[in-house]
Amino acid sequence: MSVLIVGSIALDEVKTPLASRSNLLGGSASYAALSASFFQPVHLVGIVGTDFPKSHIDTFRARNVDLEGLQIVEGATFRWSGEYHWDMNTRDTLSVALNVFENFTPTLPETYRRSEIILLANIAPALQAHVLDQAASPRFVIADTMDLWIHIAKPALLDLLKRVNMLILNDSEARELAEEASLIRCGSKIRSMGPAYVAIKKGEHGCLLFGPQGIFSCPAYPLEDLVDPTGAGDTFAGGVAGYLASLKNGEVSFEAIRKAVVYGSVLASYNVESFSLERLKELVPKDIDSRFHIFQELSRI
Amino acid sequence: MSVLIVGSIALDEVKTPLASRSNLLGGSASYAALSASFFQPVHLVGIVGTDFPKSHIDTFRARNVDLEGLQIVEGATFRWSGEYHWDMNTRDTLSVALNVFENFTPTLPETYRRSEIILLANIAPALQAHVLDQAASPRFVIADTMDLWIHIAKPALLDLLKRVNMLILNDSEARELAEEASLIRCGSKIRSMGPAYVAIKKGEHGCLLFGPQGIFSCPAYPLEDLVDPTGAGDTFAGGVAGYLASLKNGEVSFEAIRKAVVYGSVLASYNVESFSLERLKELVPKDIDSRFHIFQELSRI
Repeated sequence: MSVLIVGSIALDEVKTPLASRSNLLGGSASYAALSASFFQPVHLVGIVGTDFPKSHIDTFRARNVDLEGLQIVEGATFRWSGEYHWDMNTRDTLSVALNVFENFTPTLPETYRRSEIILLANIAPALQAHVLDQAASPRFVIADTMDLWIHIAKPALLDLLKRVNMLILNDSEARELAEEASLIRCGSKIRSMGPAYVAIKKGEHGCLLFGPQGIFSCPAYPLEDLVDPTGAGDTFAGGVAGYLASLKNGEVSFEAIRKAVVYGSVLASYNVESFSLERLKELVPKDIDSRFHIFQELSRI
Repeated sequence: MSVLIVGSIALDEVKTPLASRSNLLGGSASYAALSASFFQPVHLVGIVGTDFPKSHIDTFRARNVDLEGLQIVEGATFRWSGEYHWDMNTRDTLSVALNVFENFTPTLPETYRRSEIILLANIAPALQAHVLDQAASPRFVIADTMDLWIHIAKPALLDLLKRVNMLILNDSEARELAEEASLIRCGSKIRSMGPAYVAIKKGEHGCLLFGPQGIFSCPAYPLEDLVDPTGAGDTFAGGVAGYLASLKNGEVSFEAIRKAVVYGSVLASYNVESFSLERLKELVPKDIDSRFHIFQELSRI
């Protein structure tokens, strides 16, 4: 079964303490789509301008990402620029130019409307809701979000939460949304806002998954260094959605989501090893399997 | 086989955002001894003044902690006072009065010298080394330390590290000692300073164990609230040492230390549920087993 992914597609400029790169393929949907593509065919919904390089289109095509839902419109593609601090955990956004993204109305092609697994990657909650409005029979809906929407669009985000099965966010966002210091309390409180499952990402400390049957603590892959953390969370979400879409039969269980969270972590751990999607472009299935086994061994009690 | 524990014994005054308590039994050796006592008999080496309450002596006796190595000398017991911030992750030390601890020379009674598992709980590295000098045939030596010794006694600490099998410290201390931002790099670098095993405690994020055979990522128990974090690290170290001392045969393996780290985490998770040692005093073996199983379930992949 294919997975439907909507989100931003951007041209990024990224500075780290060691290097600086521009015109990179970025945006939440780009990372999520390539990540999910390792598990199932992806239907991508997004928007770019006429300046969007053909090489980036080729990147999607090479991974069998269906682009019928990609709008290419007159104008410039969404651009983002950011700089990481020396610890690589925090960054400053240097500039944002929405460009064609400013008037984005995500529209599902007819063939996308029956998608059963939907990933609403990080974009405004109102746009995420608009995608859900067009879906005929979603079976499991995952939403990602960010601090910006908690600050400027909280009512829309709270409305959306009632319509999704799983929310993915990071630890500081969880604390802001739940207004609780303890992440354990955050997990319970956000679940009470709607989503049966909540994944709280903790960067170098891994991820906590909260569900009706309890909590799963997923470790972080022990990386000595990372090259570019951009898109790690989007890659994680894509891996989760892709793995869930690949399940042959029926219900998305707590057991399945635990495994999905590990696969998401595996993909994210590769993604941060290079700028943009460079590492994911080279990835092969046995890389995923081998790191999945390392995660098992890492946390075995 | 009994476990030898040396460290501080203190009377604590602890303030949290919700409560304040004084004349509490505290100190690194007190927490470690009670924690280890759930696995094996403990030989305690420490010093208190004549003001030390009999009720605290009874606390040790009730858990079969051997006090032949406890020096009771004229004067006042070591006193510590601290206040936790609202997040319970950071604290200010309000006052320290070393009192009789200032002239402490740890001396092992004859019956303690053949101890095979030794926990050098958090005290000055020179005192920890002095204990090792008196040990006849230690099989596995664990040292705990703190930021203070990294700042004021680094040469002595580095000397000690060459003589211990395992070092326990928290994440910020590991970063200071190794002068590395990445905890994964810290683990390798500290191992190169001597100890074959290094446990880096990360508070609410669990613990990383580094050894010759790889890394173990131990989750944190999902506590919604904690009452008093004082002594959590000492309790962890005591649980590790106690479990290793309880092993029937031979070599202390990576597998055994992985389990020991989980038991240490179990004991620490109970300890923070009350002030001082109040929770540990009431603990029974089945509490430990049940939480061990929760750790297994929490991290199962």
